[in-house]
Parts: sequence; C-alpha cells; structure tokens
Amino acid sequence: MYLVGAGPGHPGLLTVRAKALLAKADVVVVDRLVSPRILGFAPSHARFIYVGKASGHHAMEQECINALLVETARQGNVVVRLKGGDPFVFGRGGEEASACCDADISFEVVPGVTSAVAVPAYAGIPLTYRTRASSFSVLTGHMSISQSREKTEWGHVRSETGTLVFLMGVENLEIIIARIRQSGRTDDTSVACVHWGTSASQMTITGTLCLSIASDGRTRTVQISTRCKE
Amino acid sequence: MYLVGAGPGHPGLLTVRAKALLAKADVVVVDRLVSPRILGFAPSHARFIYVGKASGHHAMEQECINALLVETARQGNVVVRLKGGDPFVFGRGGEEASACCDADISFEVVPGVTSAVAVPAYAGIPLTYRTRASSFSVLTGHMSISQSREKTEWGHVRSETGTLVFLMGVENLEIIIARIRQSGRTDDTSVACVHWGTSASQMTITGTLCLSIASDGRTRTVQISTRCKE
Repeated sequence: MYLVGAGPGHPGLLTVRAKALLAKADVVVVDRLVSPRILGFAPSHARFIYVGKASGHHAMEQECINALLVETARQGNVVVRLKGGDPFVFGRGGEEASACCDADISFEVVPGVTSAVAVPAYAGIPLTYRTRASSFSVLTGHMSISQSREKTEWGHVRSETGTLVFLMGVENLEIIIARIRQSGRTDDTSVACVHWGTSASQMTITGTLCLSIASDGRTRTVQISTRCKE
Repeated sequence: MYLVGAGPGHPGLLTVRAKALLAKADVVVVDRLVSPRILGFAPSHARFIYVGKASGHHAMEQECINALLVETARQGNVVVRLKGGDPFVFGRGGEEASACCDADISFEVVPGVTSAVAVPAYAGIPLTYRTRASSFSVLTGHMSISQSREKTEWGHVRSETGTLVFLMGVENLEIIIARIRQSGRTDDTSVACVHWGTSASQMTITGTLCLSIASDGRTRTVQISTRCKE
C-alpha cells in the first residue's frame, strides 16, 4: 500500500516516485481535488475509487476509507492512496497509516509538494524572506472555531511575525480575518487569497487585513482596495 | 531562469517538472545538500556551479549568487537554480527571485517537497493528526536567538498545541529545547530529532522534552530515555 501525495494540482508538481507508483497501480483510491491529468498516469486496467470529501458531502466516511485500503491491499493489489498535497498535512493520512499498522499491512508514505508552500509560491509569495519573515505556520480554515482548544491553536496567530497560511479558508474567511486582527496584527498586514492555486484557473487577490467581505448567497465577494490579478 | 526545489534528498521526491527542467539545463547552480543522484538528471554538457553554504563557510555570498544567476541567464543559458527542499522555505529564493525581477530576467518558480514535511513523514510522524495537532509551525534552527525580534518569533512556540518543526536545529539544539520548555510545553511533550532525513543515512531519535544534552567537543550526544532507531 502506498500513501502518496499528489501535490497541489499542477501535474508537473507530482513527484517522480508518485508517478512511478501510479504507473503500476491496480487500485487508485483518490480524493477530491486530484487532477484528472494526474490520474492519467495510472495504467488503463487500474480501478479508481473516489472517496472525496466535498464540504458537507462525504463520498465515504474516514473509517470506511481506512477499511477499504486494508481490504484492497489484502487482496494483493498494488494500492495507491492518492491524496491532494501531502498525505500528512491535513489529509488524515496519519489515520490511514495507523489503520494499516493495526491491520499489519505494510505501506510506504510518499510525501508530496504541499499546497501550503506551493500555492503561495505560484502567487509570487515566498513564505520566508530574510528581512520579513523567518518562520511560518500552517493552519486549517476548517478548524472548529468553537472547540475548547481554540485558544491554544490560535497561539500561532498571536505571533506578531511569521507568515500564516490557512488552507481551505474560504468558508471561515470572515472569522479568520477577524481573529487575526484581534490577535494584534496591524491593519496594514499584507494578505493574499488564492483560489485554485497552481491550476490554470488560479486567481490571486492581494490586499491588507483592512478589508471588507460581503457574502452574497452562494457566492462570496472579497472587496480589497488594492489589486486583483488573474 | 528556473528557481527549482530539489526536495529533501531522496531522488524520488524530485518533482516531474524539476526533472524535466534539469534534463535541458545548460547551467545548474547548486546548493549544499542536493544529492549527486539528482544532479545526474542534468545532461553531460551542463555546467555545475557550486554555491553551497556550510555552517561558517559560504562558497559564495548571497549577493554574488544573485549576480551569477542574472549573468548566466543573460548569456542565453537555460539556468536551473537548484535549491534543497523548496526554494521559498528558508532558501533565500525570495531574494534570488527579486534579483531576477530587478534585472528584468523572466523566471519560473518550481516548488519542491519541503524537508519540513517530508523528513517527519519518513520518520513516521504526521505533522497533523486529527486528535493531536491541527496546525504546525516551521522555524529555522539558525535563527539569531539574540535578535531584537526574538520575542515575537517565539510566539509560535508559545502555542500549547500544534507541531513545531525546526530546520537545521542541531547547532542550537540546547537553546531550542530550553526555549520550548520555558514556553510552557510540558516535559512529556514528544520530540524527535532526525538526521539526514529521507537519505539512506537517516537516523531518528525519539523521546520527550525532558532530555539532557551533553556537548563533547565537535560531537554532540543527545541522551534520551526512550528509543533510538536507525
């Protein structure tokens, strides 16, 4: 069983090892957000099982995914579990690895290019820069804001320097922005929102923390006073 | 000009795009810690320029590297600037990109698998895990501890949850451990030190924050009460 990072989207950002493993896969268990061009590296006989999790709609619950991986591996298949980005960055790959350990299924983890690093890079933003930021933190925008440990998780945000990266942050964008401001970062702190990073549809909106956000039914408008480039 | 991440060491963790670019390089400007097996993907006519920075000994100062990139690109060469890990994570890639911008040299950034994520993965450690850590921070072990902004940089560390990753931390290991303990993390906090991550020489030492460290001339002994695996 191979627990493989598919990278942030662009097929060129797949690793050499991931591509080689896909080429010999019998079964590919695949997440949402993995590019069809990447799936094309698998052989024609490979079986694809979609287990993606869209917001509010999970094709398969995590426990079922774990059981599926164990079962298909036990059948003697070369199983590639292909996850967006890196398998151990917000991918629940740790739980899948644990399930394989518990079932005595041998597996290999193949790290991937994480969108936390690559998406800012495609937007022209180094996470670290000698005179500006010498650390960065990666948080999920899906964090349960009301959870009891909220205060400690937000310790990262309270740091006055260091780049903050929120993955999948659009749904909680207003809360995230408000919290960052409350944490003490000044209104002129630079901000970028990147949509469909590393894909041909990538859109980057840049501005500062002093922005206003309006929700308009299912669409969301981010009004920033500076520049928008596509 | 291509500003390319070489990944954490293992040649299989190079990206497909990085391998393709290396194959057509005229000049490869290369850092310390990039595997010779990766350099082997470049054609036989390629010229290699080593600009690595070992601790206390820099083959070339950063300003000279910037000038070199601009100059070799202006001569019409396909220049691959190959950096360990990801070019924008503690690689001063941002400064090299800025230098190209200033000189009107067009360039492409090719993100890589960062050692901050891959090395823990190779040691069996997911940076995030649903019930344990839902964020992580990446800091450099080379940080100037005495710098004026030390207090704010260490804001990350003060968070009571979330995984902390220190890159190149061995020289300041005692200071880092002391600071983490002072910041309020408990003595039973799990710790791993990984040496030569993702290479055949990888060594992982795991334990807790409650460890003692002895310096012995040029070598350093980390005494941890639990297990050591190679």
